[in-house]
Amino acid sequence: MSEENKRTEIGELGEFGLINQISKKFENKNSSTLIGIGDDAAVIESGDKVKLLSTDMLVEGVHFDLSYMPLQHLGYKSVAVNVSDIAAMNGKPQQITVSLGLSNRFSVEAVEAFYEGVRFACEDFAVDLVGGDTTSSPTGLIISVSVIGESPKDKVVYRKNAEEKDIICVTGDLGGALMGLQVLEREKEVFKTNPDMQPDLTEYEYIVKRQLKPTARMDLIFELEELGVIPTAMIDVSDGLASELFHIATQSQLGVTIYEDKLPIDQMTYNTAVEFKLDPATCALNGGEDYELLFTISQSDFEKIKNLPDVSAIGYMDKQENGLKMVTKGGNTVPLEAQGWKHF
Amino acid sequence: MSEENKRTEIGELGEFGLINQISKKFENKNSSTLIGIGDDAAVIESGDKVKLLSTDMLVEGVHFDLSYMPLQHLGYKSVAVNVSDIAAMNGKPQQITVSLGLSNRFSVEAVEAFYEGVRFACEDFAVDLVGGDTTSSPTGLIISVSVIGESPKDKVVYRKNAEEKDIICVTGDLGGALMGLQVLEREKEVFKTNPDMQPDLTEYEYIVKRQLKPTARMDLIFELEELGVIPTAMIDVSDGLASELFHIATQSQLGVTIYEDKLPIDQMTYNTAVEFKLDPATCALNGGEDYELLFTISQSDFEKIKNLPDVSAIGYMDKQENGLKMVTKGGNTVPLEAQGWKHF
Repeated sequence: MSEENKRTEIGELGEFGLINQISKKFENKNSSTLIGIGDDAAVIESGDKVKLLSTDMLVEGVHFDLSYMPLQHLGYKSVAVNVSDIAAMNGKPQQITVSLGLSNRFSVEAVEAFYEGVRFACEDFAVDLVGGDTTSSPTGLIISVSVIGESPKDKVVYRKNAEEKDIICVTGDLGGALMGLQVLEREKEVFKTNPDMQPDLTEYEYIVKRQLKPTARMDLIFELEELGVIPTAMIDVSDGLASELFHIATQSQLGVTIYEDKLPIDQMTYNTAVEFKLDPATCALNGGEDYELLFTISQSDFEKIKNLPDVSAIGYMDKQENGLKMVTKGGNTVPLEAQGWKHF
Repeated sequence: MSEENKRTEIGELGEFGLINQISKKFENKNSSTLIGIGDDAAVIESGDKVKLLSTDMLVEGVHFDLSYMPLQHLGYKSVAVNVSDIAAMNGKPQQITVSLGLSNRFSVEAVEAFYEGVRFACEDFAVDLVGGDTTSSPTGLIISVSVIGESPKDKVVYRKNAEEKDIICVTGDLGGALMGLQVLEREKEVFKTNPDMQPDLTEYEYIVKRQLKPTARMDLIFELEELGVIPTAMIDVSDGLASELFHIATQSQLGVTIYEDKLPIDQMTYNTAVEFKLDPATCALNGGEDYELLFTISQSDFEKIKNLPDVSAIGYMDKQENGLKMVTKGGNTVPLEAQGWKHF
């Protein structure tokens, strides 16, 4: 086959590989572009501050299933996941645009329900809806949100500046959104087989909410500001803890050691994992969509934040040659594998 | 039917109606949000300047047909249509994000061809690609581009500040992109009936290019800057001249009078319209996707720009009670109807 007709499947490269391959062909020309592709948000000069810009696309049948995802929650989540990217840069979100592609199965009332969720999120995170595009789509719902945030220039936190011996911290708990998804998928199958069987999700309320209505951890950003603490590196946990640790380690040219017994796992997540015959630690490591913040902090600053109730220290940044590893509860050391979410 | 179960089709409201209905429920909370929904771009405070933010979504089967749209042109066009929104605010584009939803029929090579077009446009318009999102899509290709531009605060041009007796000007020529689309659609039908019949589009080259590879009129923005002229109102012609005149008139609370014999129509557009048994003036008024700039200018400033080779004066802003009308070649006065593009 000739070179021109070569066909490489996107799955062979993966999302990160594809982005790398494409972005290296682009060169920045504007002095206001401080940081382009490669972090949670782009960093753009704006007077004596910087603007942060991030964008996410959510596609029906790939990122959400409307058979159990209420449109209002989906509107909320679409904003929250973008705000989370701004939080991950230690910034504050200010404006968003929301674009929708809608098939004719969506009514005005359905669109209004979606925007009701957008509006709640705008209130929770103090963001203004400033634009968007509304168009039709041949099939299903497509959502594209862009968010602009702001930060003082010297307070932006990147993925690349973690230092050896920094403490690795994470907010909240992990794996819940994945287990919520498992429960929802199982109930959907039951419902398909027997439509009279109404699912009772009461006992799974917390993890279902983690999946359907995640929040962005702006509370941590405000707490850090109050304490006068700036993390050395930060990222939000959208693809799974292992994958995000991999990004921080690679970009900071360091290794990572974490401890299995320090992983924050909610009891309901734990029990549901066991019920599904899954290892809870693996769910915490590789479950995506928790939208918690993973950050590294110098040992001297750790003293200031160690009493924050919703932050767990899970390990430390190691020398690069030591790689990424986890010390298990049994005391063994196993390599961490960054699985992430592969949508391709 | 109860209120809760009411179903209103989006087509009943239309895109503009839907946007109006939703946006009035939102209130801005950030002092940096100078202008939100309702113009070509949002206007956001940024030191002593402003940032301009706009976004567009392009969906396969709605906005483009890959059977005749080369991916490279599509990449170029996706950037150009967004840059055009920044031009319409009298700003200069600086950063873009490009998000793609891709079905598995797209290979890495196809994505690279698309980004090659993005790269050419980034060079032509001096914009930096700073981010995006790449995900899978169950069917077809989805493109969402957001662009950030910049302008000195006192040079931003809105739709709402046209004044009575201002001259209405438009760059380039109109209706070409629509006629190019007609030709492409016809050749596609011929090809479907007889696949051995290879289309020869040489004689339609200009209008086909208007459809497949439109540009953004940044050249006018630089010319106006050099001449020290600021339009009173501006908009880009994406939905058709009549629709854009309607936006400027409504937001400026004025009427419009234009002259049929002043409409800039390229000879090839004219001939093709006649060939398709369409009225060339109607094509110029209601054909979308020309991405020319429509602007109003005070009579005193008109002297300074009247010799620009690619700008036509087509009429003037009138009293609101006179409505929107066109004086035909025969001397009759007919009302202008804003048809725009209805994707729903």
